[in-house]
Amino acid sequence: MTTPRIRYAMVGGGRGAFIGAVHRIAARMDDRYELVAGALSSNPENAKASAADLHIAADRAYTSFEEMLRVEKTRADGIQAVVIVTPNHMHFPVAKAALEAGINVICDKPVTRTLEEALELQQIAAKSTAYFALTHNYSAYPLVRYARELVGKGVLGKIRVVQVEYPQEWLTVAAAADNKQASWRTNPALTGTGCLGDIGTHAFQLAQFISQQKVEAVCSDVMSCVDGRQVDDNIHVLLRFNGGARGMLWASQVAPGCENGLRIRVYGEKASIEWAQETPNELWFAELNKPRQRVTRRGDIGSDIAARGMRTPGGHPEGYLEAFANLYNDIADILIAHEAGERHYLQDWVPSIDTGVEGMKFIQAVINSSLADGSWKSL
Amino acid sequence: MTTPRIRYAMVGGGRGAFIGAVHRIAARMDDRYELVAGALSSNPENAKASAADLHIAADRAYTSFEEMLRVEKTRADGIQAVVIVTPNHMHFPVAKAALEAGINVICDKPVTRTLEEALELQQIAAKSTAYFALTHNYSAYPLVRYARELVGKGVLGKIRVVQVEYPQEWLTVAAAADNKQASWRTNPALTGTGCLGDIGTHAFQLAQFISQQKVEAVCSDVMSCVDGRQVDDNIHVLLRFNGGARGMLWASQVAPGCENGLRIRVYGEKASIEWAQETPNELWFAELNKPRQRVTRRGDIGSDIAARGMRTPGGHPEGYLEAFANLYNDIADILIAHEAGERHYLQDWVPSIDTGVEGMKFIQAVINSSLADGSWKSL
Amino acid sequence: MTTPRIRYAMVGGGRGAFIGAVHRIAARMDDRYELVAGALSSNPENAKASAADLHIAADRAYTSFEEMLRVEKTRADGIQAVVIVTPNHMHFPVAKAALEAGINVICDKPVTRTLEEALELQQIAAKSTAYFALTHNYSAYPLVRYARELVGKGVLGKIRVVQVEYPQEWLTVAAAADNKQASWRTNPALTGTGCLGDIGTHAFQLAQFISQQKVEAVCSDVMSCVDGRQVDDNIHVLLRFNGGARGMLWASQVAPGCENGLRIRVYGEKASIEWAQETPNELWFAELNKPRQRVTRRGDIGSDIAARGMRTPGGHPEGYLEAFANLYNDIADILIAHEAGERHYLQDWVPSIDTGVEGMKFIQAVINSSLADGSWKSL
Amino acid sequence: MTTPRIRYAMVGGGRGAFIGAVHRIAARMDDRYELVAGALSSNPENAKASAADLHIAADRAYTSFEEMLRVEKTRADGIQAVVIVTPNHMHFPVAKAALEAGINVICDKPVTRTLEEALELQQIAAKSTAYFALTHNYSAYPLVRYARELVGKGVLGKIRVVQVEYPQEWLTVAAAADNKQASWRTNPALTGTGCLGDIGTHAFQLAQFISQQKVEAVCSDVMSCVDGRQVDDNIHVLLRFNGGARGMLWASQVAPGCENGLRIRVYGEKASIEWAQETPNELWFAELNKPRQRVTRRGDIGSDIAARGMRTPGGHPEGYLEAFANLYNDIADILIAHEAGERHYLQDWVPSIDTGVEGMKFIQAVINSSLADGSWKSL
Repeated sequence: MTTPRIRYAMVGGGRGAFIGAVHRIAARMDDRYELVAGALSSNPENAKASAADLHIAADRAYTSFEEMLRVEKTRADGIQAVVIVTPNHMHFPVAKAALEAGINVICDKPVTRTLEEALELQQIAAKSTAYFALTHNYSAYPLVRYARELVGKGVLGKIRVVQVEYPQEWLTVAAAADNKQASWRTNPALTGTGCLGDIGTHAFQLAQFISQQKVEAVCSDVMSCVDGRQVDDNIHVLLRFNGGARGMLWASQVAPGCENGLRIRVYGEKASIEWAQETPNELWFAELNKPRQRVTRRGDIGSDIAARGMRTPGGHPEGYLEAFANLYNDIADILIAHEAGERHYLQDWVPSIDTGVEGMKFIQAVINSSLADGSWKSL
Repeated sequence: MTTPRIRYAMVGGGRGAFIGAVHRIAARMDDRYELVAGALSSNPENAKASAADLHIAADRAYTSFEEMLRVEKTRADGIQAVVIVTPNHMHFPVAKAALEAGINVICDKPVTRTLEEALELQQIAAKSTAYFALTHNYSAYPLVRYARELVGKGVLGKIRVVQVEYPQEWLTVAAAADNKQASWRTNPALTGTGCLGDIGTHAFQLAQFISQQKVEAVCSDVMSCVDGRQVDDNIHVLLRFNGGARGMLWASQVAPGCENGLRIRVYGEKASIEWAQETPNELWFAELNKPRQRVTRRGDIGSDIAARGMRTPGGHPEGYLEAFANLYNDIADILIAHEAGERHYLQDWVPSIDTGVEGMKFIQAVINSSLADGSWKSL
Repeated sequence: MTTPRIRYAMVGGGRGAFIGAVHRIAARMDDRYELVAGALSSNPENAKASAADLHIAADRAYTSFEEMLRVEKTRADGIQAVVIVTPNHMHFPVAKAALEAGINVICDKPVTRTLEEALELQQIAAKSTAYFALTHNYSAYPLVRYARELVGKGVLGKIRVVQVEYPQEWLTVAAAADNKQASWRTNPALTGTGCLGDIGTHAFQLAQFISQQKVEAVCSDVMSCVDGRQVDDNIHVLLRFNGGARGMLWASQVAPGCENGLRIRVYGEKASIEWAQETPNELWFAELNKPRQRVTRRGDIGSDIAARGMRTPGGHPEGYLEAFANLYNDIADILIAHEAGERHYLQDWVPSIDTGVEGMKFIQAVINSSLADGSWKSL
Repeated sequence: MTTPRIRYAMVGGGRGAFIGAVHRIAARMDDRYELVAGALSSNPENAKASAADLHIAADRAYTSFEEMLRVEKTRADGIQAVVIVTPNHMHFPVAKAALEAGINVICDKPVTRTLEEALELQQIAAKSTAYFALTHNYSAYPLVRYARELVGKGVLGKIRVVQVEYPQEWLTVAAAADNKQASWRTNPALTGTGCLGDIGTHAFQLAQFISQQKVEAVCSDVMSCVDGRQVDDNIHVLLRFNGGARGMLWASQVAPGCENGLRIRVYGEKASIEWAQETPNELWFAELNKPRQRVTRRGDIGSDIAARGMRTPGGHPEGYLEAFANLYNDIADILIAHEAGERHYLQDWVPSIDTGVEGMKFIQAVINSSLADGSWKSL
């Protein structure tokens, strides 16, 4: 018997949005989800029109998420999960309401606008029967997961150094007033921080994910380069991990020539790995004093968790959308198990509310260290 | 009003197949298609089980394509298109039947097993009311289309030299007996030729697509390297184009270290371009005596046709599945126009039955030249 | 009339040494120097044998640098310059003696073992009639100099961010006892510091050289990863420059997979540059929102200072030895002008005693910041 | 006792020349040669002035090579070798005269202007007591030699396919009248052929050198793209080797974006190698279905012949001049052995008169095949 598709609703992601469309493609890629409802915009007209675009039935095109949750709860074919793709400040209220209604949540990062909200949401999630997933999509690339396995198996030896960076160029100059993405992403009321929350948390999560060590303390220098900008746009951070590794993290939105330059390098006593998001189908692996190896995304590299996230043979490049879809595929399995009252092993691979809280602690510590003129601050 | 999804059926692509799943993801990516029927396998049991996997209703899970075409014709909600993803020898009978039934065809390449079949199919297509598309997916990468535009605008000047190659390693040694893909792809009864049809035609099509010149004649050396192999696995070809360009084409399935190494370089009097399928988000553009430029797949490169095929900003890698989906997206627009009795401009960008015939002529000429000890043969 | 070759002596660089041979090739490359004397080893036998290897006349094969300076001063054909390629602790006494004897000095980096010595040497140099050059060879690569010119001309706009790194793998594990290079380079009595002085100063000098800003303050984390090692082998440093730029500097000798990975990236308001020592014939230049350009080392890039350091056309790779030779070529011109009582413009391009002092201040500040738990320390 | 430097003279290579300066640096690099005489130009004034530039004594600055050979034979400190760096048409008379005078010859490629001259020179060399070396410098890169060893040891298995190419852009348009290099290199009276002899022979020699198979037959298409050009500037060649391998060779001087793009790929039954002249410090090695390895030029790769040609550790890039110097270093050892009446094993690694004859046969066969409309022609 074929497993039915998971019925989900989206909050945010209407016309003019960016990340909502990404989530929808990701959910659709492996055909395990069905978008059946939405509160797609805070603007009712946009909400309705966007729903029609997406083949959502008119009676399930809601204009408020509260209404949606209330009504869907009562339907036999009601939603099983809600996907949150709003600006950051709305993550908390929507996630809170859904969790309290017992509806599973798939939430874009950062988890909330503030650390306080994140901590409160952590409490709420702990009490809820629903499952909460955070879409740090970069950790769902097959070769990222393979890298994590290599570290876990001790192939690199004890980890000493982690270098992670995430430069972009798109906010190098003040954005045009009509640039919707730039506008909300540099508005502290909507986002909390700038570069730190938007991409710094991705870099931080990736570093912890692969190294399997937690950042204990940071020492940082936070910059806001563009006149009049109210949030940070370039951060330099020194890292100390609980397993003894140390590292550096650079995130920037003012780096001409950089599109989406997330890159990580991990050095152990025996070997190193290097991976860059813009060339995600290759992982550089180097044992001490031996030739670097270009490991490619292909089914025969000997990793089940990596192979799971491959739809094509090596040499047929998969990218950002496929990695995002891997999260959705994993979450589908988790939700099915969850409904059956079981914990699925994939929960170890999908970012959680705890990942979200760690990210917010990182943000807070980086700000505090910079304000304290670079002294080390614990997370 | 939202346009309804296009209802399609698949022939081939059941459990254990490769390219069928690719077509389904491609069709699903932009949510413009709905898989409603299928004759997914020549094995009835596999056909039924595969259909269930894919959420196809049991009464539309056919065990023969002839029955499927007959029944679907009679349904109000019958299929609008059939996707052919069988081994090559079945392309002709299925496409013929569909075209004669007035049902649109989306057919994997090469178009048929023999040139004779291709020529006959060309006749059939000319008389049919249905539309026929051939999925040379590589020409649907945004930067390939951008490259074609650069050539068309004269940015490279008169084209002199085309270098195209497509090496793979997967058939370097004789395949295991249970390797289904290897098995049919090296069986001349099912495929016609080996490397030539499987990947040589892709390289050939790409060279013509970008250069906008037709290959007039070839001079070739065809090899079969593996003991007992009944088809070619490595081909060396010199090319002469009708616009004066000359070129070289290498395709191989016995090249260790190569996964899916389709790569093209085009040199004009003023500039050159270079593109490789394994790094599809970048195109190298070089004007004479100036620094090479790494043009990336991003919305602001000034090409509508390229921008059409982008779902994410620059730096968020898109790959093989996205390019394949671009074809499906284009075909959706073409089919809608076709139904309205109009010719859509995208037909200039989507390979047709004529492209298929050219490919088969290329195959024939390459074989003839090699048999004639390297003398030039016209297409 | 042809200019005669400059007569020089070498201190250090006997059999078994590394950098001495590099200096000799560099001096020989453009045929403007003649090695006529040497105190090549602290071991008299090695000193004599090494001199014979190098075609140095037996009566000019000295066993002490003091004797050499004394004797050579009295010869009509005496040395015009002394090249110092000893371990660090001998830089000061040799350089002091030569400068006081009025003999020009070409000294390997770091300038001395301690900041105190450097400051004293600065005083001595100021009073000497002789010229002092410090061989930070990496700043003599043509494209590094071109990068500096781009910054100077404002092509990048105001500089905001400098990322510089210098990872190596060669000290990842404790070196064998008979590894002469490893042995002295990890002995604090001979070197002062480890990674910091050996390669950190190169990275620091390059960052200042290209950005044309001085580092004002550092915030650092200094590690010594290998058990029993008495010097640092991995350093993480945040930088603040006097022109407003900020940056990060990583230097490591415990990074498996890295051979000699000096790399610098500079981001301005309008554009960025990127250069890596292992691929020195290319410089990446990116204007905001435009394709990256791969600028290559070739005569027509429009830079006299860069073109000066090229011996072959573009595409004929030049490397480490050629860059080193560029310093020697420059110093030859400077010495000729110096002898004529003139200051040559190339002094702006060749590192000086002041560069050396800055490097030692950097070392000291990095150590102090790390000891003070990461608070910012001025240079 | 130290071996004295080898005394050599140069024919050609005066002011305004290109390759002469390269030979001089190569000879100087390891300090085993001394330039003591020259017939540097056919213009007596230039010959004299050039000699003075190069510290050649006035009485050994000859204005004709015949006079030079005659006079030097009579000197006790006369030349031991003559380096020929003239345009091609002068190779034969100078080499003939030197060999007949019993003076060793180091000759730039191609060996002569015509096959007839080459065959005659081969006879002369066979009778001479002197040694003849041909400077196909690209085969002296350490990693090229390492590649040859890998093939020889059977690491790649039986070789099936060789892909070699050598594109340049510098003659894409008709050169300016005062471009001395372009002028003689496109004059058939001075060169014989264009692209074929200038770079095609390098590609051909490299293919044979690494594969250790001889090209038996070619099938070609020779182009002359630029209006009014009297020699070929782009060649496409299919290759058949005597060991069963087949290949393709492309050489071009009309390829915008290409500086000096010599590149070779060799595919065997078990593995492949890939090397490109513009990144000579890395060799790609790929075993079937395993990750590609980036082998770097470093002392510990386990090849004596490769290690011989390294002056610096891995990561310190060496390039074109160093490879050229490797030939000179080898020839020094060969000449010393030759003088002692011994054959040195390095003769197996340094191109000889026979290599030169093979190159001229290749040129002739390529031309013949193209004239015969692409039929296969034996060498």
